[in-house]
Amino acid sequence: MQNNQFAIVPTDSESAIAELQKIHFITAAMADLKTVPAVYRALLAESFPEVHSAAGLTHKFANLMATSQLNLNDWLAQATIVSNQVFYNIGLQLLGFLPGQDFDLADPLLAMRDIHLPMVGDTAFDRESLYYAWYLLLNTRGVQGQTLIENLTTRGYFVPDYDLPNTAKPLFFNGKAQAVFNTNDLIRDVVYVEAPLDTDEDGQRDLLKVEILRPAETATGLKVPVLYTASPYNQGINDVAGEATMHDVNVPLTAKEPDDHTYADVKAPDKKQQLPAERPVDETSTEAEETFGREKSYTLNDYFLARGFAVVYAAGIGSVDSDGLAPTGDEDETTSTVAIIEWLTGKRHAFTTRDGDVTIEAWWTNGNVAMTGRSYLGTLATAAATTGVDGLKTIISEAAISSWYDYYRDNGLVVAPDTFQGEDTDVLAAEVFSRSLKAGDDHQIKAKFQAKLAELEQGQDRATGSYNQFWDARNYLKNVDQIKADIVMVHGLNDWNVKPRNVANLWDKLQDVPVAKKLILHQGQHIYINNLQSLDFTDMMNMWLSHELYGLDNHAESLLPNVLVQDNTAAQTWHAHDNWWQDTDQALDFKVQYKELVPADHPVDQRAAHFTDKLPDKLFKHYCTDLNAWQADLISEDKTSPLYDHRLLFKSWQAPVDQLLVGKPHVAGSVAVNQNFGMLSFMLVDFGDAKRLTVSPQLIASKALDLGYHWREDDLKDFKLAQTVSPYKVITHGHLNLQNRQVPWHAEALKPYEFYDFSLELQPIFHHLLTGHQIGLIVYATDMRMTIRGNQDLQYSLQLNDLSLHIPTKPFEA
Amino acid sequence: MQNNQFAIVPTDSESAIAELQKIHFITAAMADLKTVPAVYRALLAESFPEVHSAAGLTHKFANLMATSQLNLNDWLAQATIVSNQVFYNIGLQLLGFLPGQDFDLADPLLAMRDIHLPMVGDTAFDRESLYYAWYLLLNTRGVQGQTLIENLTTRGYFVPDYDLPNTAKPLFFNGKAQAVFNTNDLIRDVVYVEAPLDTDEDGQRDLLKVEILRPAETATGLKVPVLYTASPYNQGINDVAGEATMHDVNVPLTAKEPDDHTYADVKAPDKKQQLPAERPVDETSTEAEETFGREKSYTLNDYFLARGFAVVYAAGIGSVDSDGLAPTGDEDETTSTVAIIEWLTGKRHAFTTRDGDVTIEAWWTNGNVAMTGRSYLGTLATAAATTGVDGLKTIISEAAISSWYDYYRDNGLVVAPDTFQGEDTDVLAAEVFSRSLKAGDDHQIKAKFQAKLAELEQGQDRATGSYNQFWDARNYLKNVDQIKADIVMVHGLNDWNVKPRNVANLWDKLQDVPVAKKLILHQGQHIYINNLQSLDFTDMMNMWLSHELYGLDNHAESLLPNVLVQDNTAAQTWHAHDNWWQDTDQALDFKVQYKELVPADHPVDQRAAHFTDKLPDKLFKHYCTDLNAWQADLISEDKTSPLYDHRLLFKSWQAPVDQLLVGKPHVAGSVAVNQNFGMLSFMLVDFGDAKRLTVSPQLIASKALDLGYHWREDDLKDFKLAQTVSPYKVITHGHLNLQNRQVPWHAEALKPYEFYDFSLELQPIFHHLLTGHQIGLIVYATDMRMTIRGNQDLQYSLQLNDLSLHIPTKPFEA
Repeated sequence: MQNNQFAIVPTDSESAIAELQKIHFITAAMADLKTVPAVYRALLAESFPEVHSAAGLTHKFANLMATSQLNLNDWLAQATIVSNQVFYNIGLQLLGFLPGQDFDLADPLLAMRDIHLPMVGDTAFDRESLYYAWYLLLNTRGVQGQTLIENLTTRGYFVPDYDLPNTAKPLFFNGKAQAVFNTNDLIRDVVYVEAPLDTDEDGQRDLLKVEILRPAETATGLKVPVLYTASPYNQGINDVAGEATMHDVNVPLTAKEPDDHTYADVKAPDKKQQLPAERPVDETSTEAEETFGREKSYTLNDYFLARGFAVVYAAGIGSVDSDGLAPTGDEDETTSTVAIIEWLTGKRHAFTTRDGDVTIEAWWTNGNVAMTGRSYLGTLATAAATTGVDGLKTIISEAAISSWYDYYRDNGLVVAPDTFQGEDTDVLAAEVFSRSLKAGDDHQIKAKFQAKLAELEQGQDRATGSYNQFWDARNYLKNVDQIKADIVMVHGLNDWNVKPRNVANLWDKLQDVPVAKKLILHQGQHIYINNLQSLDFTDMMNMWLSHELYGLDNHAESLLPNVLVQDNTAAQTWHAHDNWWQDTDQALDFKVQYKELVPADHPVDQRAAHFTDKLPDKLFKHYCTDLNAWQADLISEDKTSPLYDHRLLFKSWQAPVDQLLVGKPHVAGSVAVNQNFGMLSFMLVDFGDAKRLTVSPQLIASKALDLGYHWREDDLKDFKLAQTVSPYKVITHGHLNLQNRQVPWHAEALKPYEFYDFSLELQPIFHHLLTGHQIGLIVYATDMRMTIRGNQDLQYSLQLNDLSLHIPTKPFEA
Repeated sequence: MQNNQFAIVPTDSESAIAELQKIHFITAAMADLKTVPAVYRALLAESFPEVHSAAGLTHKFANLMATSQLNLNDWLAQATIVSNQVFYNIGLQLLGFLPGQDFDLADPLLAMRDIHLPMVGDTAFDRESLYYAWYLLLNTRGVQGQTLIENLTTRGYFVPDYDLPNTAKPLFFNGKAQAVFNTNDLIRDVVYVEAPLDTDEDGQRDLLKVEILRPAETATGLKVPVLYTASPYNQGINDVAGEATMHDVNVPLTAKEPDDHTYADVKAPDKKQQLPAERPVDETSTEAEETFGREKSYTLNDYFLARGFAVVYAAGIGSVDSDGLAPTGDEDETTSTVAIIEWLTGKRHAFTTRDGDVTIEAWWTNGNVAMTGRSYLGTLATAAATTGVDGLKTIISEAAISSWYDYYRDNGLVVAPDTFQGEDTDVLAAEVFSRSLKAGDDHQIKAKFQAKLAELEQGQDRATGSYNQFWDARNYLKNVDQIKADIVMVHGLNDWNVKPRNVANLWDKLQDVPVAKKLILHQGQHIYINNLQSLDFTDMMNMWLSHELYGLDNHAESLLPNVLVQDNTAAQTWHAHDNWWQDTDQALDFKVQYKELVPADHPVDQRAAHFTDKLPDKLFKHYCTDLNAWQADLISEDKTSPLYDHRLLFKSWQAPVDQLLVGKPHVAGSVAVNQNFGMLSFMLVDFGDAKRLTVSPQLIASKALDLGYHWREDDLKDFKLAQTVSPYKVITHGHLNLQNRQVPWHAEALKPYEFYDFSLELQPIFHHLLTGHQIGLIVYATDMRMTIRGNQDLQYSLQLNDLSLHIPTKPFEA
């Protein structure tokens, strides 16, 4: 294991001791102990909350080796000092490391350094430095992906603190809220928030079902902040309806009518809506009239439920027990998302029943809200943030969409999220319109929803793939300047579902916005990362939210790195950076010579290269069902590969030093095609034999992460290096409709056989290129995984001497 | 979905009404209701425990369609009768089925029949038949793999019953214990049982750590039965130590010294042991001195924790916080396993601490014990049962070993459990000897354990693969006649880890033992089946254990089928049978003609066939790392397959009718080999294009099975038919050392180039052979997945006219 820990709040010795007293690790009785080993023994005795007898404790101590020859009991019997050797021998064992396998009892300090565990250098501790070392050890992560204090939490350490008075809650330790809330006693309420919307046009404002989990302490006056997850999936999904709406992607690309559009032509008009009056209010209650069994939860939220935060789930318009129609990303959806926050901050009504007139306030919250969630959930958090709604202090948006055009389209082309070929806004709407799962409700709403689907299908305009008013209304980037919430963004550099452009554009636009912002880029696909062994993501978020929502002065903003990036060449390795590509003006510039990428200052011959897109029918069908085979053949340098003549591949020198390729690679060139329409696709590839990270985190231990004490659990996982060597890795992708050579809303004419200049940015990257590896650029047309696939007779020619590739870089510092 | 429900206890109308009153579904107020629709409305009102207001209920009713045009509210407003059409339209929706997708509101009865849901035929219900239909509906399984009453349980229906007096607990409904125990209040104790063993020879009897979970009601006098899981894995495993002990399997087969052994020569001698005295007892306590955080649990046990059963986990000798050495399957291990039961029934001491002298009794149990668990866990349940220990009322043994020789050996050969090539008793012991995970304990015990490993390595005797005293001491089948516990056995017909012979031999031996026995054969590998959508396994076990441990007269013994088998040709299809192969004398008998299996009465030519075992080195290495490729090539009928000349393949006629192949296929013949040693392997294959079941159950819904109310969860899964057609499926395997042509303990001489008669039973089967499919017999030598792999120059000749295949059969009845 390699530890990567960013959420340790530097604490001076005096404060550390005070904190240890607060959590009862240092007790009053310890002052009477005469020797440092005696104090040490007392601290160790508190580390076995499951044992209630001296004999039991003696046995647990006997399980631990203090030196290579003495167990803890034997050592304590003769100890006069506590050395850091003994301290970390025991400490490593308490953290789950095994002598002989994970470290050597003769040199624990070496292991502490190798695993990147923080330690105190003193060779022999006095009482104060022992306390300090103990404090640090409690805040150190072990093999189970939890700090020692978290491990003790899962074994009942904080159970006595369930009874602390509300004035002593929440309980913070090292700048992070601790699990002193009994999750068995959580209160679960359902309320119905009235949104300023009537999307189903029934003459009544849309009511939105909200599920609330809050600590029992709120019933006796504790005001808690809220983690709010807006999830259209939360009340169930209609897979069958989604499937039925799926689009055929084996359809031809067609020519677009050239136009003179500027952005003004596609700018979404302001939405004017005749809004029904608010419902009349008869009375106000403080008690909900409905509860729920098992909500669809997010483990990060579960973790915070044990630590003094309420959690709120809402599925929004179109979901079970709510009103409205699912609109996939438009302003109504944002309004629906924000309405919950407005209720939480006292600005909207909620009712105790779906059809009643009794309102209920969120009297139990301190009014500070964070939004959490991945994918569509993180997208709605982003959407809400761009409204600048009061009370939303921060969002943690993971793998979020920042513009729906960047999710379903690219440069004038229909480009699917990977693994969801044929999906579009209407498909997603049909899937999340969970009102259709309730037959009684569906019976009266389905006609309206069919009309909504037709409206989406028309607006999304698969025929052209162009950016239009429909997409502009679904572009949150326009309103980034309104953001008032601090932001943590998490995204996978290998996320080809919600592609990296989504987070990159948001990050870039945020550079000028006066909010705190943090970015974490991992090597996964479309995943969450709060269960990794090697990164203290959950602790980081605890530090962040304790600060943002409880106002704790823990320096979270300065302690968390601005940009934290997982290295793609080694397991369990993360590096902090000041920024993504914004802090560099270095770059690699290439031109093309025959099949090579050569430095841009290299003279190159004038020369054209050609490829045809059309495949033999049988091969085409094979690739339709085996996309991995298609990609492998596309990248193969073997002349017998069936795709050898269907793409161009250019390879660079072998990299002379390790370097970081960062930001948006840029490709320019000139192309001709034998029709009046066409597309180009691009892949950037890292060529070089290496054991590479597995694309998904692998299971280390099932249910190993207890998120409190006898509370919900998560699996412990991490990325590992594959056991076998692979010859390459795809770094990034790009796609271009040749009629959208400037902007995606303006279609230009394309004459057959005439050369046109093009230029485009590929999806942004943060890639560690190892010494000796080569960069490859592949130019092709149909992308079986993402574009429509007409398998048409299209022949492309490129002027190789015009082709250029620009990649921003940074030096790699280990 | 296709429902397979075996645990509905037939109940007359009067009893059903009494039971509905007991669980408060029928309330006193209902007697005052004038009409059947009014009663129906009252029953429905109780089906939304999360709603506490009339308005809320009206909304939930509006979500349900009563007819194709009316929702439940509208229909109730005008109803004069309750028809079964309306009842089952609503019923299906309550069970999670969706109109339009899963059934048609115009004909719900058709869906009830198609999905195999029980129903009441009355077209219009009177009050009594309505109650009865409601009772049946509560006991009917829905799409989430739970009955309606279970679904209501997960939504809080039984929460008010947490406060029932102990006299009213447990609460049975339709012969099954209900979740009226608050799992938040479970009491968790650790005690140390003193076993009549001193396996680590330290002059003290071995203490065994036991983890107990029991309902809070035991503290106020309720006596509960125990589900006891003996799991050597329970306190952690030492993977690294196991790996380090793994054996190289790429070693040559060698000749055995011929011997004159009879069984008497290999019979394990009675174990005589000088046992230290029991520890002195100073006092007795009723309070434990140690508790625990998160035990390693089994979801079936978790389910019962909510229903009035205690659960006990013990990892046995050699595990963390216990004494002793891991011995892999010997009598000491059985004694260690049984000691816990003896404590539970008042016959042994347990201590409150590891080194103390305060005993504690299991005063909270009624003394009735069941053992549960899969694989090694089920094995230890079987072991315990064969001692006839008092108090052990029943075992539910899943994928259990009945003789360790049948796990690691076969007919005189080392034959590995599939996917564990190189494993043996010493490897397993090193892995489960979790004392090695505690450095302090390991320091003082490791020398003794190294000696134990050496003893295991010698005893297991990989050099010969013969059955000896070591293996005889690990053969539970010898003591089947001592079994007094009733037994449920569960095994995968595709389990090539613990191979089907293990369960078949136990089942067969049990035929003469006067205990109740049930057998469930599924199409999975080495899995548990308590989370399948289509089978009510958990309900069956509830019915079984309510009967066995609480003495409930629910006819569990007669209601559960003797032999329940999952069909291999269709999804979600299970058939009840009277027995496995014991109730048939039908069979298919084949001889061999060229490459065909022909009926045995067919005249065949005298003819020999030959194959060589040795592979080109590169191919051999490739197969070592890609066992699937090896198996595919072995079965391939393509003459270009690299293994075409390395095996013989014989195919039968196309089956004229569907039939069941059952029991132990028998192969006989005569073989010659060019050395004085050799082996044969056999595969029986079902040839025929078909979409076959996936080998593992697939995820249907994550965490969908709440095992109580806000309690632990399991994923809902089931086997599905693969989306693509496959040309064959392996039915079974067999292996034979040519020097063990009679019995595995007697080595016979083998002269090179001389023909010898052989005969063997293949692993037992229960296989549905479809009309038109063909049976294939493959004869080969080295089994890359299971045998040692010397890649030696061995050439085999078979007299084809001597080769015969006998397969017991039964007619297939749909």
